[in-house]
Amino acid sequence: MTSTEIPDIVVGRLPVYLRALSFLAATGQEITSSHELGEKLGISSAQIRKDLSHFGEFGKQGTGYRISHLQDQLRRILKVDHQWEVALIGVGVLGHAVARYGGFHDRGFRITLAFDNDPAKIGEKVGDTIIQDVAIMPDVLRQHDTKVAMIAVPAEVAQAVVEVCVKSGIKAILNYAPIHLLVPPDVHVQYTDPITHLQRMTYYL
Amino acid sequence: MTSTEIPDIVVGRLPVYLRALSFLAATGQEITSSHELGEKLGISSAQIRKDLSHFGEFGKQGTGYRISHLQDQLRRILKVDHQWEVALIGVGVLGHAVARYGGFHDRGFRITLAFDNDPAKIGEKVGDTIIQDVAIMPDVLRQHDTKVAMIAVPAEVAQAVVEVCVKSGIKAILNYAPIHLLVPPDVHVQYTDPITHLQRMTYYL
Repeated sequence: MTSTEIPDIVVGRLPVYLRALSFLAATGQEITSSHELGEKLGISSAQIRKDLSHFGEFGKQGTGYRISHLQDQLRRILKVDHQWEVALIGVGVLGHAVARYGGFHDRGFRITLAFDNDPAKIGEKVGDTIIQDVAIMPDVLRQHDTKVAMIAVPAEVAQAVVEVCVKSGIKAILNYAPIHLLVPPDVHVQYTDPITHLQRMTYYL
Repeated sequence: MTSTEIPDIVVGRLPVYLRALSFLAATGQEITSSHELGEKLGISSAQIRKDLSHFGEFGKQGTGYRISHLQDQLRRILKVDHQWEVALIGVGVLGHAVARYGGFHDRGFRITLAFDNDPAKIGEKVGDTIIQDVAIMPDVLRQHDTKVAMIAVPAEVAQAVVEVCVKSGIKAILNYAPIHLLVPPDVHVQYTDPITHLQRMTYYL
């Protein structure tokens, strides 16, 4: 089964299922059901069963899902059954918070590279990694065969930084800069901008 | 025109349009077109025109949009033509970064309240506000008639914190905790979890 067959909206729900399963597992629970997951996630149980059925049979009618098994399968499908090395680009206030956030490790990601253009920061440690000069970034990214980057630079320079990333082999970009990025079709971008989320809600208030 | 008539997916694109317009305005540009916006955003110009047509006529055929006018209209539609007071709940590493993030002010939001349960933090300043004891949060939220909250507490306590928020009048929640929240139908929640974004991309790698 190739990825092109699965709607992206289905793919987007899998990490949410995985997160809910990990939360249940942490409480010691071993079995769950599409009904229980649906209640926790505000998604219909039929939708959950349909989403999962794209990838195989993970539970038995009437007995539910073994949580650890379904976690393993989802990790495999999402390719986070191993850790991805991630490059953090831009180590300002936000970049620092991202690097210090402890939640990446057990969910498939590890920040192993960090870059900034501020001479005062280069050589300093952020999280577990040493901040390097963004000028040597292309070489370092290629050397490490890094595929995943998080962009936390000012909006004005984000597009230029991303172009360097793309040329250096980055294929997945989580963009914290509040600007839309133009990338080739084989490069994936996800956006995280708190204000667009907030504005989407105030519309309804 | 009531909000129920407009698909939520359209509402979700308006903040992205507003962000792009602000970026163009910052460069001194005065006029744009659905074509130019579409190129910048990777959205078809027809889609942009259709989205905007839900709310009125904002440009003239052949002359494009006056950027400042369209910004004003989108701010009005999204109700960010004034500043919303926002309560930040949880002032750990992430909460600190959120509070220090300078991007809220000119996009309709201001963190005016901050709460934590750590006695060592209560009374300290974060950003422009003093951290208060979460125990007095219900009273303070009601007193200020606060409608918008950002949740940056650990996942284990997020649901309990949100229930207090909802009882205290909060209607829009931006959730940084990596867990799905259950809220009444009249309360809006948006999620910001970097890992779900990353996992959605690694699927394709």
